[in-house]
Amino acid sequence: MGWRARLLALDGLMPGMDEAGALAWTSLADAPQDAELVFLGLDGDRPCFACVPPQGDSAPRMANPALWAAMAALSPGDLAVYGGARSLVDWHARHRFCAQCGGATEIAKGGWQRNCTQCGAQHFPRTDPVTIMLVEHEDRLMLGRGLGWGEGRFSALAGFVEPGESIEEAVAREVLEESGVTVRDVSYVASQPWPFPSQLMIGCHALADDDTVTMDETELAELRWFTRDEVKAALVGGPDAPFAKPPREAIATHLLTWWSAK
Amino acid sequence: MGWRARLLALDGLMPGMDEAGALAWTSLADAPQDAELVFLGLDGDRPCFACVPPQGDSAPRMANPALWAAMAALSPGDLAVYGGARSLVDWHARHRFCAQCGGATEIAKGGWQRNCTQCGAQHFPRTDPVTIMLVEHEDRLMLGRGLGWGEGRFSALAGFVEPGESIEEAVAREVLEESGVTVRDVSYVASQPWPFPSQLMIGCHALADDDTVTMDETELAELRWFTRDEVKAALVGGPDAPFAKPPREAIATHLLTWWSAK
Ligand SMILES: [Zn+2]
Ligand SMILES: [Zn+2]
Repeated sequence: MGWRARLLALDGLMPGMDEAGALAWTSLADAPQDAELVFLGLDGDRPCFACVPPQGDSAPRMANPALWAAMAALSPGDLAVYGGARSLVDWHARHRFCAQCGGATEIAKGGWQRNCTQCGAQHFPRTDPVTIMLVEHEDRLMLGRGLGWGEGRFSALAGFVEPGESIEEAVAREVLEESGVTVRDVSYVASQPWPFPSQLMIGCHALADDDTVTMDETELAELRWFTRDEVKAALVGGPDAPFAKPPREAIATHLLTWWSAK
Repeated sequence: MGWRARLLALDGLMPGMDEAGALAWTSLADAPQDAELVFLGLDGDRPCFACVPPQGDSAPRMANPALWAAMAALSPGDLAVYGGARSLVDWHARHRFCAQCGGATEIAKGGWQRNCTQCGAQHFPRTDPVTIMLVEHEDRLMLGRGLGWGEGRFSALAGFVEPGESIEEAVAREVLEESGVTVRDVSYVASQPWPFPSQLMIGCHALADDDTVTMDETELAELRWFTRDEVKAALVGGPDAPFAKPPREAIATHLLTWWSAK
């Protein structure tokens, strides 16, 4: 492949961008001799790769305003490429050792696997399923403000699916834990990958039996019900918006848009 | 808690069963002094625990007929408890070392976390999202027989969600890879946890544009279209069934039942 292969420009885990605001690519020839290379796929007939950086990053995206700005600037197509690449190289950077025996692991299968050099165990990139849910009661939605979020910023509640749970059970447990509210009629709406570090966001809708909330203060700073008109106004934005909506590229925005048009 | 706490009886990862065929429990006092204990939850007001076994098991369930038989014998409630417990203790048994630095990890937060004793990294139980899909074309379903499965045994195609994919994209990629068929109108049907080792099965339905298949021979032994009457007959079972249905407790059986009644 040689000269035709492309290498995604990354500064650590941050995307490199060209003067037009698109993802920057260099030639595979620019990769260090000893770099661990992950195959990202073909762009037409040109193979695309990314290098595993020295360090991964398990911090939530909220903690990184520069990354947030870069993501908002990328086109949806570039964001998907960057997100998939970031998930993979970050996983490699944080899995250089075998969880089973502590031995060193080495990259295999073009970067879609790591093998232990000591016990032979095979390790695969991890994707964590996360439920994110719109909870509705009498035409109002329950939205929360997380600890550490800016004033006025609200979004849908969310939480990891735990071992032994279905999607529907995870939604009900998470809502009960964070708000004290019992839900029924959980239904699936849409899904989206989210590369911080590597999540599968599963968007759902549920009906609340009651609007009395008991907020989990270890997770949330505020928990409120918003009317359909308030949600619509927030999606339009502006200084008079009843709350600051989630970023455009987050599935929460898609869910709010879906609900406001329902 | 002491004498009131219960300990799930496990032989390695196999469930212990009492004479009535239910999950067996002993007293927490029976646990070895140095056992790693995972908190499973409350049964009424009695805390329930399981011990982490010396070894985990990453083999697929198909490879373990004794386990299969035990699962078929357990009630749905017991199966859910066993499945959740098995996922957790198996994860602990296979994560005694830190993937980031190779140091030893120790159990934390009642067994819902492991912390590295060397670099401090926190590790959480893993759940892998897997799509499993009914592909329909002109009132027939595409079902496959995996390599190594018994003659006449068919089920829905399935595959892991990869980093950077939505559920809908994973379904379309998996069907294309295994059968060469392009699908549209992917919709979510139901989900179920599956503890081998710890999967979230996401059941979907999709429509095929065409019924011409190109089978992936590295994954499948057979790939066929079955009519609605054939699927109904298989669900009834018996010697004349057109194929052997998946086990009762698998989500594939639920999906086939859902489709045959649609
Ligand atoms: Zn190893
Ligand atoms: Zn460590």
